[in-house]
Amino acid sequence: MKALITTIPFADNNQLPLELLKASGIDYQINPLNKKLTEDELIQIIPDFDIVIAGTEPITEKVINNAPKLKMISRVGIGLDSVDLLMAKKRDIKVSYTPDAPAPAVAELTMGLIFSLLRSIHISNLQIHNGQWNRIFGRRLSEVTIGVIGVGRIGSRVIRRTKPFGTPRFLVNDINPSKRPDLDFKLEWVSKEKIYKDADIICIHVPLTKHTSNMVGKKELLSMKKDAAIINVSRGGIVNEDDLYDVLKSGHLSGAAIDVFENEPYYGKLIEIERCLLTAHMGSMSIDCRSLMEIEATEEVVRFCSEVSLLNEVPQAEFDVQADKLN
Amino acid sequence: MKALITTIPFADNNQLPLELLKASGIDYQINPLNKKLTEDELIQIIPDFDIVIAGTEPITEKVINNAPKLKMISRVGIGLDSVDLLMAKKRDIKVSYTPDAPAPAVAELTMGLIFSLLRSIHISNLQIHNGQWNRIFGRRLSEVTIGVIGVGRIGSRVIRRTKPFGTPRFLVNDINPSKRPDLDFKLEWVSKEKIYKDADIICIHVPLTKHTSNMVGKKELLSMKKDAAIINVSRGGIVNEDDLYDVLKSGHLSGAAIDVFENEPYYGKLIEIERCLLTAHMGSMSIDCRSLMEIEATEEVVRFCSEVSLLNEVPQAEFDVQADKLN
Repeated sequence: MKALITTIPFADNNQLPLELLKASGIDYQINPLNKKLTEDELIQIIPDFDIVIAGTEPITEKVINNAPKLKMISRVGIGLDSVDLLMAKKRDIKVSYTPDAPAPAVAELTMGLIFSLLRSIHISNLQIHNGQWNRIFGRRLSEVTIGVIGVGRIGSRVIRRTKPFGTPRFLVNDINPSKRPDLDFKLEWVSKEKIYKDADIICIHVPLTKHTSNMVGKKELLSMKKDAAIINVSRGGIVNEDDLYDVLKSGHLSGAAIDVFENEPYYGKLIEIERCLLTAHMGSMSIDCRSLMEIEATEEVVRFCSEVSLLNEVPQAEFDVQADKLN
Repeated sequence: MKALITTIPFADNNQLPLELLKASGIDYQINPLNKKLTEDELIQIIPDFDIVIAGTEPITEKVINNAPKLKMISRVGIGLDSVDLLMAKKRDIKVSYTPDAPAPAVAELTMGLIFSLLRSIHISNLQIHNGQWNRIFGRRLSEVTIGVIGVGRIGSRVIRRTKPFGTPRFLVNDINPSKRPDLDFKLEWVSKEKIYKDADIICIHVPLTKHTSNMVGKKELLSMKKDAAIINVSRGGIVNEDDLYDVLKSGHLSGAAIDVFENEPYYGKLIEIERCLLTAHMGSMSIDCRSLMEIEATEEVVRFCSEVSLLNEVPQAEFDVQADKLN
C-alpha cells in the first residue's frame, strides 16, 4: 500500500506517525509542494496512491475520478467539507477522521481570542509596535454575555472554561438542541437571531455545510450590538469576509477574531482593520493536539491495511449533511 | 477642601466619583494636562490643593514640599512606589489606597497574555496584518509549568484560574511565604532561581521595591528555558527592559508580554521585537475594576473630609518597605 500525506506540517514535533507507517510496511510520501494543495495539484499527484492522509485540501469528485487506486481517506482533523463523501461512498472508499483530538486546542485558542477582544490586547500590541500609546478600557468576563453557536465538543468546552470567570449569561444555539452538554449551570437556548442581538462576544463552533455557509453576513453583523465582537475558529466562509470588512469599516462592532478563511493563506482586506484580530488557522495547532490527530489518523491507516475495523469511520450523519446539500 | 485628581482617565465610564465629591461639597479639578504628570508639572499644579486623588505620578519629597496645604493622598490603585510615604508621614499627610479592586482585572489580562504567548496569537496577528501567513505551533496550559513570583491578590487568582485548564505544575515564590493562598491543589514553593530555570511561563506579580527593582535582568532571563516566556504586569523596572531586549534579540526565550514600563508612554526599542507582546499599562483597565477603584478612592476622600475613619489607610508594612529602601 502507498499513502500520500497531504496535510502539512506532518510529524514535525513527534515522529511516531511515520514510525507507525514504517513498522507496518506502508510506503508513504509527504506532500512534495509543502503547501495546501489545490484541486489541480492533487489531481497530478494522487493517481499512484491507495491512501490519503488528508488535511483540508479539496478531495472533490474530479480528484477521486483521477485516483483509480484510492481505497481510504484518513482526515487529520474533524471538518469534512473538503471531502466529497458521496463520491467516496460510491467508489467504496473508506473515510475516517479524528473528531475529538482538536477540541481542547481549539477551545483554548478561543479563550485567548476572547481575552484579547475583551481587553484589546491585539490592538494595543499593534499600536505600540507602530509607535502609538493608548490605554484602552476593557471588560471582564463577568461583565459580558457570551453567545455560542454550535455547542458540540468545542463550544461546550469554551462555555465550561469561561464560567469560572463569572460570566453571568450564556446564550446558545445548536442544530441539534437535544444534545445538551453536561453542565451544572444554566444555558439559555435561544434563536441565532437572539444571540446576534444580545450577546457581547459571539463564538462560532459549527461545521461548514450548506446551512452554515455565509451564515453570518451583513444582516446578522449589523443586528449585533455596536460594541459586540465575533469569533470564527470553525471554517472560512461561515462568516462572510466581505460583509465583515464592510461592517467593521463602518465603525460597527468593537472587533472580530478570525482564524479561518475562505482562501488560505489569507492576504485579504481584513488586514487593513486594526481591531480585526487575525490568526493563521491555528485552532488545532497545539503540539499535543496536533500530534494526537496525526497519530490517530495514522493508526486508522494501519488498521485499514491490517484489515482491522476502523475506530473513527465517518458516521452516516456526515453523509446526510452532504446529501442534503444537493437538494 | 480642594481635591486635585491627577489620575486619568477619571469618571469616564461612571460619573459616581464626581457626584460623590459634589454631594460632599468638595471642590475638585481634574488633571489639566490630560497625561501622566511629571514631578515638575505636579509641583506647578499642586500648591493650592488639600487632597490628591492620585495615579502613578511621582509624589516625591520635592512635590510634598511644594504642597503646603496637602493633607491627604488617595491612590487609585495598589502600588505605592510613586509616593514618598515617609515624607507624607513626617508631614502627617494621610495616605490611602485601593488594594483589592484591581486584582480581578489584572489577573484576567494576565490570562489573556498567557494564552497569547502559548499560541502566538500576537505574532500571527502582526504577521498577517503585515501580509505574512505562517501557521505557528503552540502549547496548551496542560503542557506547561507556570511560575508565579508574588502570590498575593493577583498571583493567587491567576493560579486559581489556570488550574482548570489542566496545568500540572505551579512553581511559586513570595517574599512572605507564610501567607499561602487557600487552594485545594498543591503549589511547589521554590526559589526564584528554580522558577527561572524550570518554568515555561513566568508571571511577575510583585510591588516595585528596592528588592524587586531590576529583579529580572540578563542573568535571570538567560537562566530561563530557551522556549520559555515572561510576563510583567506589575511595575516597570522590575524586568530590566534593556536586558530583555538584548536577550530576545539574541534568540533566547519564545516571547515576553510587558504591560508596564519604566517610562510611560513607552516608545522604546522592545517595539522592534515581533514576539514581544506590548500593552499600554492596561492591567486594571476593565470598566468595572477601574470604576470600583475610582469610587473606593473617592469614598476615602469623602470619609477624610467628614472626619470618619478611613477604610483603606496604607498599612505599616508599606512604610517599612520604603524605610528599608533607605538602608
